[in-house]
Amino acid sequence: MTSPLERFYSIIPAGGIGSRLWPLSRADAPKFLHDLTGSGRTLLRATWERLAPLNGDDRIMVVTGRAHRAAVEGQLPELADENIVLEADPRDSTVAIALAAAILERREPGVIVGSFAADHVIRGDRLFRQSVTEAIRVAEAGYIATIGITPSEPAIGFGYIHVGDPLGQADAPSAHAVREFVEKPDAATAKRYLSGGDYLWNAGMFISRADVLLAELERNEPALHASVLELAAAWDDPATRGRAVDRLWPTLKKIAIDYSVAEPAAASGRLAVVPGHFDWDDVGDFASVAKLNSNGRKTDLAILGENARILSDASSGIVVSQSHRIISLVGVQNIVVVDTPDALLVTTSDNAQRVKSVVDALKLSGRDEVL
Amino acid sequence: MTSPLERFYSIIPAGGIGSRLWPLSRADAPKFLHDLTGSGRTLLRATWERLAPLNGDDRIMVVTGRAHRAAVEGQLPELADENIVLEADPRDSTVAIALAAAILERREPGVIVGSFAADHVIRGDRLFRQSVTEAIRVAEAGYIATIGITPSEPAIGFGYIHVGDPLGQADAPSAHAVREFVEKPDAATAKRYLSGGDYLWNAGMFISRADVLLAELERNEPALHASVLELAAAWDDPATRGRAVDRLWPTLKKIAIDYSVAEPAAASGRLAVVPGHFDWDDVGDFASVAKLNSNGRKTDLAILGENARILSDASSGIVVSQSHRIISLVGVQNIVVVDTPDALLVTTSDNAQRVKSVVDALKLSGRDEVL
Repeated sequence: MTSPLERFYSIIPAGGIGSRLWPLSRADAPKFLHDLTGSGRTLLRATWERLAPLNGDDRIMVVTGRAHRAAVEGQLPELADENIVLEADPRDSTVAIALAAAILERREPGVIVGSFAADHVIRGDRLFRQSVTEAIRVAEAGYIATIGITPSEPAIGFGYIHVGDPLGQADAPSAHAVREFVEKPDAATAKRYLSGGDYLWNAGMFISRADVLLAELERNEPALHASVLELAAAWDDPATRGRAVDRLWPTLKKIAIDYSVAEPAAASGRLAVVPGHFDWDDVGDFASVAKLNSNGRKTDLAILGENARILSDASSGIVVSQSHRIISLVGVQNIVVVDTPDALLVTTSDNAQRVKSVVDALKLSGRDEVL
Repeated sequence: MTSPLERFYSIIPAGGIGSRLWPLSRADAPKFLHDLTGSGRTLLRATWERLAPLNGDDRIMVVTGRAHRAAVEGQLPELADENIVLEADPRDSTVAIALAAAILERREPGVIVGSFAADHVIRGDRLFRQSVTEAIRVAEAGYIATIGITPSEPAIGFGYIHVGDPLGQADAPSAHAVREFVEKPDAATAKRYLSGGDYLWNAGMFISRADVLLAELERNEPALHASVLELAAAWDDPATRGRAVDRLWPTLKKIAIDYSVAEPAAASGRLAVVPGHFDWDDVGDFASVAKLNSNGRKTDLAILGENARILSDASSGIVVSQSHRIISLVGVQNIVVVDTPDALLVTTSDNAQRVKSVVDALKLSGRDEVL
């Protein structure tokens, strides 16, 4: 039998518009297609390049919406045709990951899959791959493994993983059982988590044998599991895929994999965690983007955008320039200005999470053309 | 001899870009060509309509830059050809007003002139015309008359007029001597001025016999006076005007009429003031524009711009929309957002005066295309 690492396959669910990053992120330009770090690479491309040294280019599967096919293929010329799974419409993370896992399990029984969001930022790719490698060994032993990020601050924007006892697995020395997942805490609780030392950030990365993942799904969402298996069985034959999708897709339950798989598995002692010591950010709002682009200096205005023409006395906040206009800031601090050809956002770092409410209001008022 | 009112002529100097209103006001769209009150009329047009009932359309002269000829004539179809004075380049208010006065004095000896900025906002046109009428009678008696605005608050953005003794002129009962002009005060001084009751705002309106104005100029700036008279003598003959302008214009001293005429006249007891009880604002910055457009409610976001598409939770400040983009404000207060097709300004009401520094910086960096 081949080694666990040789049986490993990465899944990149590339969905999610990123409403809190409106008007930069929107339906036809979702978050994963943006360069939010000034690196010159989109988040999707950076994710690919982080995983390729582990898998090789031919063992990465991308799940995305039909509308994004061309953009995704443009970003990932190495992506093989059979490794892009196009969704008729978005059905949340369980469908994206479980369908990919089921397709791969049919093609290659015994495959170990890891799912990694297309729109997170990681710095420290070598440390990342070390953690994934350890998680693959834990997965081989039958656990669903997640990678928990060592917190660098008492963040209130992330969920946490309460770490349990060491697994005691010789080839995965840092792996622990997971006691439970906890939702985003308030500031006092977050401080307590940080000082206690046994809480990690939930980065939503899951590594497991495909059959283990699907069995866990079957336990908790049997109807969804059955539909996913049926779709997977029809997937690789052009004569059957279309009809199966037409019939089953509209019935698929929208549920995050955290609820359908991870939390129940944790409650039953089937979830393990490997701590990750790399920098990680889910870039949840423009305050995060500002932090990622200020070069670590809190007294800098972050600027994102090619050929940005900024005239500013601001010493904090961020300007995203997509319009080639002159942008002038006078006497504003912690400001967030996002300037696109058809929509302008002005807010502050402290209000960055509330940007989603603008998107909701635009939807309600029928102005979908800028969403 | 005709009555003083029949000998009255209005002069509207329409110059000044209004740098503190950048990027709305700029070289090819100066402040006086904008509607800053949401009235549907430009400031220039509103000035004309305020004066026409006093003068009739054929007794208003407009002094403006050559570049603005078409725009001014578009705004003022009633303006006669001989009543538009086109400046080769801007030479400050003394040249604009004194040249117009000298031209009019040659055409019509004994004329009484009043100069009124093209870019101020006045509410209470009837009260305005009452004050001007009284000032005309004071001018007939040989004074240079100004109209001082009764302060409504301890403003620090305006100069003040220290009011002296009543003139005791029977047909101008509210006219007083002017003790002195004082520059923009600090907040404490402004409060003292307001409570004392003998200080008025200097609105820069001057009404006098043209010969009296020119004599005062001759006393203080004899060389400039001589050039102005020479220009006026050549003005109405197409054969001579061009050469006189070519020769003299580059030599004309740039000096505000406050320094060349008003302050020296006040110091010598030749300046009188008529109090004005109408609302007046020189619309010096976007904080003023916000105030003028918030319908008197301090808890409203002011919006200026046709078809503005604003989504905002702000309860103060102003958005000027010239680009038809969706503008979204989240969690910002006292904000100033000016959105034009090629330049964007974000500042706060408290920093509105500092916008001029942006224009200076753009000049220094050679980006004149947006100025």
